[in-house]
Amino acid sequence: MGVAKIDMEMEQAAREHQNHLTKPQGALGRLEDIACWFAARQGKAIPDALKPHICVFAADHGVTQEGVSAYPSVVTGEMVKNFVAGGAAINVLAKQHHAGLSIVDVGVLTDIADIEGVYHAKVSAGTKNILHEAAMSLDEYKQAMHVGEQQAFDAVKAGANILIAGDMGIGNTTASACIICRLAGLEPEQVVGLGTGIDYASHQHKIAVVKAILQRVKDIPDTDVIHHMGGLEIAAMEGFYRAAATLGAPILLDGFISTAAALAACLWDKDVIHWMLASHISQEKGHQLALHALGLEPLLNLNMRLGEGSGAALVLPLLQSAIALHSDMATFESAGVTNNDE
Amino acid sequence: MGVAKIDMEMEQAAREHQNHLTKPQGALGRLEDIACWFAARQGKAIPDALKPHICVFAADHGVTQEGVSAYPSVVTGEMVKNFVAGGAAINVLAKQHHAGLSIVDVGVLTDIADIEGVYHAKVSAGTKNILHEAAMSLDEYKQAMHVGEQQAFDAVKAGANILIAGDMGIGNTTASACIICRLAGLEPEQVVGLGTGIDYASHQHKIAVVKAILQRVKDIPDTDVIHHMGGLEIAAMEGFYRAAATLGAPILLDGFISTAAALAACLWDKDVIHWMLASHISQEKGHQLALHALGLEPLLNLNMRLGEGSGAALVLPLLQSAIALHSDMATFESAGVTNNDE
Repeated sequence: MGVAKIDMEMEQAAREHQNHLTKPQGALGRLEDIACWFAARQGKAIPDALKPHICVFAADHGVTQEGVSAYPSVVTGEMVKNFVAGGAAINVLAKQHHAGLSIVDVGVLTDIADIEGVYHAKVSAGTKNILHEAAMSLDEYKQAMHVGEQQAFDAVKAGANILIAGDMGIGNTTASACIICRLAGLEPEQVVGLGTGIDYASHQHKIAVVKAILQRVKDIPDTDVIHHMGGLEIAAMEGFYRAAATLGAPILLDGFISTAAALAACLWDKDVIHWMLASHISQEKGHQLALHALGLEPLLNLNMRLGEGSGAALVLPLLQSAIALHSDMATFESAGVTNNDE
Repeated sequence: MGVAKIDMEMEQAAREHQNHLTKPQGALGRLEDIACWFAARQGKAIPDALKPHICVFAADHGVTQEGVSAYPSVVTGEMVKNFVAGGAAINVLAKQHHAGLSIVDVGVLTDIADIEGVYHAKVSAGTKNILHEAAMSLDEYKQAMHVGEQQAFDAVKAGANILIAGDMGIGNTTASACIICRLAGLEPEQVVGLGTGIDYASHQHKIAVVKAILQRVKDIPDTDVIHHMGGLEIAAMEGFYRAAATLGAPILLDGFISTAAALAACLWDKDVIHWMLASHISQEKGHQLALHALGLEPLLNLNMRLGEGSGAALVLPLLQSAIALHSDMATFESAGVTNNDE
């Protein structure tokens, strides 16, 4: 089963509809393009309102042993508890924008099996230290991807028509920087950022660690990039995106981690990109270059760098507005307004 | 009565609160600044949720006789009917974001006195042709400003805590280009845009018209700029902004027309700027330079150029998210998450 096809006839029908709405042609700018984009993906000239679902995938990273993060790994599990208690940024945004929210333990280091409200799918208690060895076995990679695929499938089955994957994983900007450098053909100096907030010396060290990791894996094929350098949450996000595109569910990308997973999903099948919108430019260095490699133009730049799907969730009302305007505005004919074509 | 003071102690208290929320410091980027901005204006470390009100001021422009617009003046009155019938872009956005909406006839050319749902405050049936004479008398300028002031007063009295002024007026990008050139010290070539959608020849003609108008008024003082070149809706918007800042109500600017009025309001008292946020960059040429002259950084750029307050209305949920995150997220202490300060 390959990536779902998009309906260019419906995109054209939507474009035609836009030209009758009571505004100068093109005056709603990218909002018009967004409405037509959804028309092509929903196969409806006037697309349905969005029913968003957000899955936050949490996992830990052995590479934190190298001192690449400002926070200890224990925070990953603590934040999962915060997610199910409703206290994190993504909870506030999901509630505000009426999005479903699932929290998935795909590889948290601490044992959180007794926490209710978490989808327990731990493949392994974190990855290995990718400076020295593969992050996970091939079998673990497949398992983690499958966790993500299952989440996408469940969300679509429950009626979601736009999917967001968020991440939680101390150390995952290091893994993502490695993936982005390798898959987008960029240098560590262009890509490695400050993560949750490291100082200058730690940043220099992080760049050196990323360089050493890339050197270690230089002879592996691209298809082994996630298996060797990815987090379990990144593998799950790759699976989530692959399944979403296969099921014909639009994807709203979040930030740096999300884009690393998107590169992997598009390596699997380049047509996955047709199901992706970029929400925002993260402050994490290299995110803009990674989006550029995918050919995506983000909608927003507010210097965010939180992850959790928060940038994507923030952008949801812009998409909802685009569809509401397309669907609910009067036409020149119905409103009796003089058009300049006449 | 001067411009209301802002409370920098509350801004500081809000900043301190942000540092306890379960996220790396600064990870929410400009959303953190926005929450603190409202804290200083509301005088509360945790600001209240936003209750937005949008006033659309409609008026016509004698300068349309010069062939500067893609649409005829009759469209202004037709669009007012569309506003009260609920079919325009601003209706859809106001409804989506739970904003109050008032439609004000401050100078529409056609007689729309019988239309219900419009606030009838027509000062004059459009302005004079500013290529040859002053747009309005000084008395009309004061009357139009007063209409705007009254709208701001009524909105705040009814509980609004963020105010948006929108515009409807065929020909008003020409008037606004003149005002922006003069008050921001810019050249017509930098500022004059395509308005509702004119072609190359018409654009060149529009630049020539703006140059001739600026030449005509070159010896008037800056304080007479709106009286000589403004639309009645722009004068009303100036009054709306002056009153909002005096009443201590935050202002969310829209696009090109809105920014012309903002320049006039800030000329009256430079402290008005402390009550203004810029929502988006309009596609109308020169808008970004005009915002730069005000020292404002817009939140969004989606190539919109519609007016009506639509760009500002679109941005409302971003502000609402900023405040919701500030107000509703858990702290490291309450959630039991390890902070990196510890």
